[in-house]
Amino acid sequence: MNTFRYSVHRALDADDGGTAGIERFIDTLLIGLVLLNTAAVILESVPHLHLQYARWFAGIELVSVYVFTLEYVARVWSAVEDRRYRDHITGRLRFALTPFALIDLLAILPFYLTLGGFDLRFLRVVRLFRVLKVTRYVKALRLIQQVVRRKRAELLVTVGVIAVMLILVSSVMYYVESEAQPDKFGSIPETMWWGVATLTTVGYGDVFPITPLGKVLSSLIAVLGLGLFAIPTGLLASGFTEQISEQHAAEQHANFCPNCGHKL
Amino acid sequence: MNTFRYSVHRALDADDGGTAGIERFIDTLLIGLVLLNTAAVILESVPHLHLQYARWFAGIELVSVYVFTLEYVARVWSAVEDRRYRDHITGRLRFALTPFALIDLLAILPFYLTLGGFDLRFLRVVRLFRVLKVTRYVKALRLIQQVVRRKRAELLVTVGVIAVMLILVSSVMYYVESEAQPDKFGSIPETMWWGVATLTTVGYGDVFPITPLGKVLSSLIAVLGLGLFAIPTGLLASGFTEQISEQHAAEQHANFCPNCGHKL
Amino acid sequence: MNTFRYSVHRALDADDGGTAGIERFIDTLLIGLVLLNTAAVILESVPHLHLQYARWFAGIELVSVYVFTLEYVARVWSAVEDRRYRDHITGRLRFALTPFALIDLLAILPFYLTLGGFDLRFLRVVRLFRVLKVTRYVKALRLIQQVVRRKRAELLVTVGVIAVMLILVSSVMYYVESEAQPDKFGSIPETMWWGVATLTTVGYGDVFPITPLGKVLSSLIAVLGLGLFAIPTGLLASGFTEQISEQHAAEQHANFCPNCGHKL
Amino acid sequence: MNTFRYSVHRALDADDGGTAGIERFIDTLLIGLVLLNTAAVILESVPHLHLQYARWFAGIELVSVYVFTLEYVARVWSAVEDRRYRDHITGRLRFALTPFALIDLLAILPFYLTLGGFDLRFLRVVRLFRVLKVTRYVKALRLIQQVVRRKRAELLVTVGVIAVMLILVSSVMYYVESEAQPDKFGSIPETMWWGVATLTTVGYGDVFPITPLGKVLSSLIAVLGLGLFAIPTGLLASGFTEQISEQHAAEQHANFCPNCGHKL
Repeated sequence: MNTFRYSVHRALDADDGGTAGIERFIDTLLIGLVLLNTAAVILESVPHLHLQYARWFAGIELVSVYVFTLEYVARVWSAVEDRRYRDHITGRLRFALTPFALIDLLAILPFYLTLGGFDLRFLRVVRLFRVLKVTRYVKALRLIQQVVRRKRAELLVTVGVIAVMLILVSSVMYYVESEAQPDKFGSIPETMWWGVATLTTVGYGDVFPITPLGKVLSSLIAVLGLGLFAIPTGLLASGFTEQISEQHAAEQHANFCPNCGHKL
Repeated sequence: MNTFRYSVHRALDADDGGTAGIERFIDTLLIGLVLLNTAAVILESVPHLHLQYARWFAGIELVSVYVFTLEYVARVWSAVEDRRYRDHITGRLRFALTPFALIDLLAILPFYLTLGGFDLRFLRVVRLFRVLKVTRYVKALRLIQQVVRRKRAELLVTVGVIAVMLILVSSVMYYVESEAQPDKFGSIPETMWWGVATLTTVGYGDVFPITPLGKVLSSLIAVLGLGLFAIPTGLLASGFTEQISEQHAAEQHANFCPNCGHKL
Repeated sequence: MNTFRYSVHRALDADDGGTAGIERFIDTLLIGLVLLNTAAVILESVPHLHLQYARWFAGIELVSVYVFTLEYVARVWSAVEDRRYRDHITGRLRFALTPFALIDLLAILPFYLTLGGFDLRFLRVVRLFRVLKVTRYVKALRLIQQVVRRKRAELLVTVGVIAVMLILVSSVMYYVESEAQPDKFGSIPETMWWGVATLTTVGYGDVFPITPLGKVLSSLIAVLGLGLFAIPTGLLASGFTEQISEQHAAEQHANFCPNCGHKL
Repeated sequence: MNTFRYSVHRALDADDGGTAGIERFIDTLLIGLVLLNTAAVILESVPHLHLQYARWFAGIELVSVYVFTLEYVARVWSAVEDRRYRDHITGRLRFALTPFALIDLLAILPFYLTLGGFDLRFLRVVRLFRVLKVTRYVKALRLIQQVVRRKRAELLVTVGVIAVMLILVSSVMYYVESEAQPDKFGSIPETMWWGVATLTTVGYGDVFPITPLGKVLSSLIAVLGLGLFAIPTGLLASGFTEQISEQHAAEQHANFCPNCGHKL
């Protein structure tokens, strides 16, 4: 039994660098199923496709949920083979709370909740979050994750600065423009919709100032917005440079003290 | 008296790294009140909420102003405990002119001006600048501030270059397009509204050229705009890299070989 | 014969740094013809120019195809002078499958396919891919290519992250907005059109949310989009820095002290 | 005479770091006059201001042209004091062809051409190029200029890549969309207007695809556009980093050979 559980653990664990046929096959199968399922959920939302291929969509869904449930149970059951989750109960529980395990749970939960009496439309949409299952297999995501984590504090502050800027900018614009366009700048929350469109340079064109002062303000804010969004870009650029130069340094320079030759 | 004043100073000063319960409690209370107040001012601008919850909004405002006034008075009064503002009169005055103290004053001033006969609508909007009070507590803002200050001259020049570009571009476009669309490109200032929307790539869609030459120019300017706004991003990226590598250098230069004590 | 083939090979090969008059002349002629031809194909698509100058366009096309065919045949024929493609049959075949040779083939194929019974309109458009022939002559493209190749994995992952984000964001927005605007958010694929316009900040303005919740979501997504697109910029910025510092390092590591010859 | 000419040269030359009162006064006066004049030309284009303040605008223009003409003549006359332009005729001619001298000429030429029978409206617009005269006084522009010059080749190539991409993308889109919207995608040049709006993410909203295939293509191109414009940003970011680290290196490290102490 234990040996079988260990094999299951190894077969599912994408991280241990195993290149045995069975592991690759399982990975490919699961990735393929996730992508097929994602495509099916997207297409199912198109009314005429929904009517025409209802059976196909239901079939893909059933098979997917069956396989993903099996995968989830197998992962939780075999998780105790991992040193970190050795304990049969608390170990498995801690494993079940890891991000990847939660994504796996999220992938099957909507189906079982549908069997209860929950809001069907919402659950159908939630099914699309299954696509996050593929992130498990993408190794190159790590550099990006490391850099984002390294700059987390500054990135969050930037979001805060953008939020504060949005509040100030929208309050001033509300004062300037609300009389000329009470239907579009009628309150600060409404004005914020213009603020976001301008700061992010999306500019849908449904809301824009028409008074001269409003246009001057809007211009200043659009320029300011580009300046603001230069901050996260600069942060990430410097983060990538640091992360990679540290990795190089760690690899290349096994430093020694030039005086006594002691390895540093 | 002096001991109490010192306690007040320490309890309010977020910078001295104190972790005593009372300081944390006061910080949390003030941040919470600022956020509550900001939300209230934003929601109060929505007409039907204004009617329905007028009492709540007035209550939050009164309590906030009371607390913020108390905070301001306490800060100015206890400022003399700080070495930099020792003198009872000029010290407090210099403290009152620091950016954070001015923001604190701005947070309470509108209320007292309202009691006089000033423009209510404008003062209501100014109340939102209270949200700047939270910047006092965000430590991670410093790196961004340092980098912006380090590149101040170049960032200002970039703004100047953008302004000059906007003037030139709008004057040419005015010449090209004013006959075809006299209502939208009828003068250089009016044409500048198009210029900003194009250079910043906001593109609301209320103004755009319709003549072939105007479209060619507009295309060149949109590309140029993206190039221009690459300058501040590049400046900030290089600024973050420098700032952090200097901090690393400052940290590492103090290193010694752990074996022989030779300075590295 | 062999000597002539070698001359042809040298005359056509832009890479060997030859500065002989004939090579320069051929390069200039071919670049000029590509640019002339590109301009002609673009202008030919304008109906009234097509009618008026049909003869000229046909003439340019005929001459171009004749020259480009000659060039292609000469390149394939003389390719065996290059060490890498020595073999008369497999060498030439391998040469014919290199990106530049494929572009050269693509430049003449449409003409010959037109002589068969293929879709004329499509082939006319394909003719414009001839413009890619100029990339052969642009040496400065290499740094950009090297950096993109160096960061290939991360750039691809970023595209993947954008795709996943687009799917999730569009599915949630479909749920939120489809009842209010069934004509524009009627299915997830339709909602994706809004998703792209928002994430990329293009914001054409044909589709935008009108419900308050939709506007809040849209705002979050626009900010997120700018954050996402900061990743490739940061990657490229750090890539250029690395690539150039490596080139410097490679140059400098060969330095010696000019006084004592000690290797530095 | 010579001594007076030398004084004029020194008084006008912003570059020799002189801090004498007269030089500063002249600089401030000229900058002020340029800014006043720019404001006047911009406001003069507003019809009702033009009518109301015609005299003022004419006055500012006359004074400006008089001063700028005097300045130009003085600069050309005293240029021979500069070693580089010693010769009385060819030296002054070469000086007159430097960028700054050409800008100074451009600032006064429109007025004298107006006295001839030239197109008034165009010349009025050209007057705004006077604003470029201020660039002479902005020292912080140099870092930006150095970095742009350092990366010139790659930046130009990026512009080329964007142009090629625009041509290919527009030709394919023309094929896909011209039947559905013959008025907006009726030829490749017309489609390029959409192409620019999408690649640069300006998205005015006057032209966008309505066919499903057109929307898919447009989405891909918007994402590609953001990737393309990440290249100049990355180039500039790495350029600023290099430029500044070279300046640091030049300042701080007077390197010595660690073997013999020879200065490198």
